[in-house]
Amino acid sequence: MRRIAPALCCLLFAASAVAIGRSDREAPPTTAQVLEAAQPSDWRRPDPADTLYLDLPAGRVVIELAPRFAPEHVANIKALVRDRFFDGLPVGRVQDNYVTQWGDIDEARKNEASTRKLPDESIIAWNKALPIVKLPDRDGYAPATGWLDGFPVGIERKPSGQVWLTHCYGMVGAGRDNWPDTGSGSELYAVIGQAPRHLDRNIVLVGHVLRGMELLASLPRGSGALGFYSDEEKPKRTLISSARLASDLPESARTALEVLRTDTPLFTQYVEARRNRREGWFVRPAGHIDVCNLPIPVRDAR
Amino acid sequence: MRRIAPALCCLLFAASAVAIGRSDREAPPTTAQVLEAAQPSDWRRPDPADTLYLDLPAGRVVIELAPRFAPEHVANIKALVRDRFFDGLPVGRVQDNYVTQWGDIDEARKNEASTRKLPDESIIAWNKALPIVKLPDRDGYAPATGWLDGFPVGIERKPSGQVWLTHCYGMVGAGRDNWPDTGSGSELYAVIGQAPRHLDRNIVLVGHVLRGMELLASLPRGSGALGFYSDEEKPKRTLISSARLASDLPESARTALEVLRTDTPLFTQYVEARRNRREGWFVRPAGHIDVCNLPIPVRDAR
Repeated sequence: MRRIAPALCCLLFAASAVAIGRSDREAPPTTAQVLEAAQPSDWRRPDPADTLYLDLPAGRVVIELAPRFAPEHVANIKALVRDRFFDGLPVGRVQDNYVTQWGDIDEARKNEASTRKLPDESIIAWNKALPIVKLPDRDGYAPATGWLDGFPVGIERKPSGQVWLTHCYGMVGAGRDNWPDTGSGSELYAVIGQAPRHLDRNIVLVGHVLRGMELLASLPRGSGALGFYSDEEKPKRTLISSARLASDLPESARTALEVLRTDTPLFTQYVEARRNRREGWFVRPAGHIDVCNLPIPVRDAR
Repeated sequence: MRRIAPALCCLLFAASAVAIGRSDREAPPTTAQVLEAAQPSDWRRPDPADTLYLDLPAGRVVIELAPRFAPEHVANIKALVRDRFFDGLPVGRVQDNYVTQWGDIDEARKNEASTRKLPDESIIAWNKALPIVKLPDRDGYAPATGWLDGFPVGIERKPSGQVWLTHCYGMVGAGRDNWPDTGSGSELYAVIGQAPRHLDRNIVLVGHVLRGMELLASLPRGSGALGFYSDEEKPKRTLISSARLASDLPESARTALEVLRTDTPLFTQYVEARRNRREGWFVRPAGHIDVCNLPIPVRDAR
C-alpha cells in the first residue's frame, strides 16, 4: 500500500493525497496545487431544478441534466420523475466497458410521457454567442472539443455548424430504438468504460453523473446479449428505490455539491496540470489531454 | 428490452445479435459481417507459456503477457507465479474509472522475485523490422498508433524512435513506487475506465486481459485514497484463489481461446467496420477510430 502507482486519477481527495515530488517553485502547479488555490468563485452549484437523484439501495447517484442540449428530453425526464415512473424499475443492462442502463427495460410501464415522441436532440447549432471553452488539444472524433455549461462537447464550426455532447465516462443518455427520435427518456444509460465516441451525434445525451458513478459502474455485468440480464439474473437486478428532482425535495434531503467551473482561468490551469503531470511520480508528461480524460472535480458544498 | 440502444460494443456474440439495417450489398461490411467472414487463419491462439490465469472466487481472468515489450517483468511475474506468490493475496485497490490492482498490496509477502530490481521496460526501440500494423487515424497522445503482437501501441519514429504499449481498457501493468525501476510485478493493475494514456511511457505494461475483465471491473470500489480499501473494507477484499501459467496446467484445466489477429487484411476490414459503423442503428458514422476504442475480439477456441 506504500505504492501509489499508478498515481491519482481524478478525485479531489485523491489529488490531495499524492505526494508532490518537485521542489522547483517555478514549475507549473500540479493538479492538487491548482485545486488548493481555487477560490469559492471557481466552483458552481448545479441548479436543483436540473439535478436528478437516482436513489439505489446502495446509495445515491446524482445526475446533472443538460437542458441547453436536450430541452425536450430533459423536460420529459422531469415529467417521468414527477410521475414516479422510475420508482421500482430495474437497472436492466450492464455491458462491460460500455454502458449501464436503467428504467423501463421490460417496457412494462407505459404512460403518456414514456411514449411521447421527441425530436433528435443529439446536436445543437453552433453560434458565436455560445460560451464554449475550447480545448486546444487535437481530437480524432471532432474538429474541436471543449466545455459548455460544464459539459464536454464536440465542435464543428464548418461546414455543419454543430455542437454536441460527447460520450465520456459518466455521461448519461436516453436509450432509443432504431430511429433517432424514438427515445423518450424512459430508459437512460450511463457510460461505464472507454468513451464510445462513435455514439456522438447518434443518440441523445441528457446529462452527466456528478456523484455515485461507482454505484452504476460496479454492478454485475449482464450475461445476456448486449449486457442485458438473463431471465435467471432478472430476479437479482438492482431496483431503483426512487428518482427525484433535487428541487422537489426539502433542503435537508438534498446532496449539496459544488462542481469546478470550466469557464475560469483556474480551469485552464487545471487542464494544463492534467496535460503535463508535474507530480514527482511521472517521468514523461504526456503533453496532451483528451476531453474525455479530464474528469471535472466535484466536492461537497461548503 | 426491445431497445438495443446504445448498440453493440465489442463482444463477438453481441455483434452478431445486432440487426443489420442496410440492404445495400455494395456497402462496406458491418462488424458482424466481417467476423462472420473470418477464416481460421484470421485467429491466433495465445502461447500458453505467456498466458496467466488469475483465478478469483467469481471466475477466471485470462491475461496474455507481452514478452516482447517487458521481457524482464514478464519473466519475473512467471517466477512469482511459480513461487505461488499471488495465491491468497488480495485485490486491494479498485479506483473508479481508473484501475483495479492486486497482489502484495500490504507488502507482507516479500521474496527474492518480489524484491528484484527490474529496468524500466515501458518503451522498446523502434526498428523497421517490427511487424507493426499502423492505424491511419490520428491520435492525440502519440504521433501514431497501431498494433504489435496483437497489443495496442504508440509509435514515435522520430526523434525518439520509440514504441510502447498504450493504456487501453483491459491493459495490465506493474505497479511501482516513485521511480520507474521499482515495480517487480508483485503488484499488478488492470485499466477499468477511460484509457489513462498519460500513464504511457511512465509505467510498465506487461499484458492485457483476454477474458474475465468484468470480474475485475465490477468489484466494489475502495473508499480509501486512490481506491485502496479502507481498514474496515479489508476483511471483505476479494482474494486470489490462484495464479497459474496456462502452460503449467494440464490441457483439461486450461481455457482455450482464440484472438483475432491484428496483422491480416480481415483486421483492416474490421477496423473500418468500427470506424464507420454500418449497422442500421447508426445515423452518422464517426469516420474515425481510436486505438483504445477498438476491442480485439476473443472467442472460445474451435
